[in-house]
Amino acid sequence: MNEFEIIEQYFKQVHPQSQGDLVLGIGDDAAIVTVPEDSELLISMDTLVAGTHFPLETAPEDIAYKALAVNLSDMAAMGAFPRWVSLSLALPENDADWLKRFSSSFNQFSNEESLVLIGGDITRAPLSVTIQIHGIAPKGKSLRRDGAGIGDSIYVTGKLGAAAYAYQNIISSNSFPSPTEEELQRFLRPEPRIEIGIKLRSIATSCIDISDGLVSDLNHILKASEVGAEIQLSSIPYADSLQKLDKDKAIELALTGGDDYELCFTLPDGVSEELVNELHSIYPVHCIGKINKNNFKLDLMGDNDQIYTIQKTGYRHFN
Amino acid sequence: MNEFEIIEQYFKQVHPQSQGDLVLGIGDDAAIVTVPEDSELLISMDTLVAGTHFPLETAPEDIAYKALAVNLSDMAAMGAFPRWVSLSLALPENDADWLKRFSSSFNQFSNEESLVLIGGDITRAPLSVTIQIHGIAPKGKSLRRDGAGIGDSIYVTGKLGAAAYAYQNIISSNSFPSPTEEELQRFLRPEPRIEIGIKLRSIATSCIDISDGLVSDLNHILKASEVGAEIQLSSIPYADSLQKLDKDKAIELALTGGDDYELCFTLPDGVSEELVNELHSIYPVHCIGKINKNNFKLDLMGDNDQIYTIQKTGYRHFN
Repeated sequence: MNEFEIIEQYFKQVHPQSQGDLVLGIGDDAAIVTVPEDSELLISMDTLVAGTHFPLETAPEDIAYKALAVNLSDMAAMGAFPRWVSLSLALPENDADWLKRFSSSFNQFSNEESLVLIGGDITRAPLSVTIQIHGIAPKGKSLRRDGAGIGDSIYVTGKLGAAAYAYQNIISSNSFPSPTEEELQRFLRPEPRIEIGIKLRSIATSCIDISDGLVSDLNHILKASEVGAEIQLSSIPYADSLQKLDKDKAIELALTGGDDYELCFTLPDGVSEELVNELHSIYPVHCIGKINKNNFKLDLMGDNDQIYTIQKTGYRHFN
Repeated sequence: MNEFEIIEQYFKQVHPQSQGDLVLGIGDDAAIVTVPEDSELLISMDTLVAGTHFPLETAPEDIAYKALAVNLSDMAAMGAFPRWVSLSLALPENDADWLKRFSSSFNQFSNEESLVLIGGDITRAPLSVTIQIHGIAPKGKSLRRDGAGIGDSIYVTGKLGAAAYAYQNIISSNSFPSPTEEELQRFLRPEPRIEIGIKLRSIATSCIDISDGLVSDLNHILKASEVGAEIQLSSIPYADSLQKLDKDKAIELALTGGDDYELCFTLPDGVSEELVNELHSIYPVHCIGKINKNNFKLDLMGDNDQIYTIQKTGYRHFN
């Protein structure tokens, strides 16, 4: 099968030519869409490389899911409603079974999220998956990193460190007790927080998704907003298995492990308890600290109000 | 340098935060753009892999240029005006000199085409470049593959086979005489036919860019439009060096070589000579045949009106 036949057989059938504001889908030199007049378009792109972003032996279903989830999470962090996706797939060989499993998971998750595949390509190269995602939000209502103000409270969704704990267990299974099934799923199948992202549109002053680790990602908010922050280590919602580890290791995984794809956001001073409860009813949220005026400085407050120092701040390529 | 610093240093400086309908550029979880009310959005993605789409030793400046050109050519084929671009760069190592040369060429060509880099990522993997491009066109005016009608004339821009000839010379320099400088540039630095694509919006019934070879790409038009075609081999505008080759080899390179990034388009019966001359004044165009009712069948007419048969129909992955 050549690349055109692969696309026809595995990816094309689930994408109707016209759905809402999709004018032309897969099969021309470009897709054509229209954006509603009162909306702005959000565009993001992420690549996952085998051996770097996921273990080489990861099941094709999980690779497809995660590649979509990572990109959907960017839409969640912007408060966007995801609409269209492009896929560039690099494959070392034409493996029909792999493609069938990958595309079936990709198509299923796309459909669940009302996301339509509009294009892309397939090339012969070491395994990697590049996805470009497009979402929409009412004009001027997208969440950004640069709006955090002094006195704002800092929140995260869910629990932190589950994905990093599961990953450590996968790469060195003897050093750690088995992760819970939920923790393993958090690594393999992170849930993009689309619904809470959309709810935050008219409430949060800034938002980011936690892909590289809380410290690294919160620092992006501080830099973009030109503020500082103080977070209480005792307020961090640690993943269950972390509570069996020694304290320093638990803090390292929860704050720098990354891959959780929870949201970190700021709410202005004086936001009502009722509103926080509304967020909580969509998905649990936890207040972990406050924005302050210490430009770009993030203080982690430990026992007895001592500043705690960690070495590793998050995963980065080319370090 | 980590990936954030690479983006800051090499790619970010040339992209103002707000330019026309760009609301937010590089540096958040997604870029934000607005699309003019009367316009539709064209979206296309292409990956170039080292060793497959360009020789491993290709200069970084040429890789950057070609990756952009290939994507701009998709916009030309749709009659779109290019606006925004995302770049996903896979690099085997952090090579500052390579990055400086790549980004300088990328930034220069983007600026020339009024194209703004709005996002992407950099990962550590074997060298490949994935670009997603966005363009705009008046609603309903984009060029597509599916509008060719019986009796339409088939045209191509420029000359065919130059890129394939230059490539053959690069990979086996002893078998062919040196290509002309223009032919070498056609392979390394193909010129996207943006201006003629925009001009064709209100004239052409179908359009495609010649990336895989005329036969393969024209077949896409025939399939999408549910028509057939007859082209005269004597009307093909062969690249200069092909005229030194034996006839079969010249035909093979011109019709199946690919990589020319010229446009192939159809004009309705009765289009005025004046209009064709207008096109010709932007860039030379040549009529090479006609659309007929033989569903999906492409006849190549040789000497004495005999049907000519070629084996290879175009470059495909996974064949």
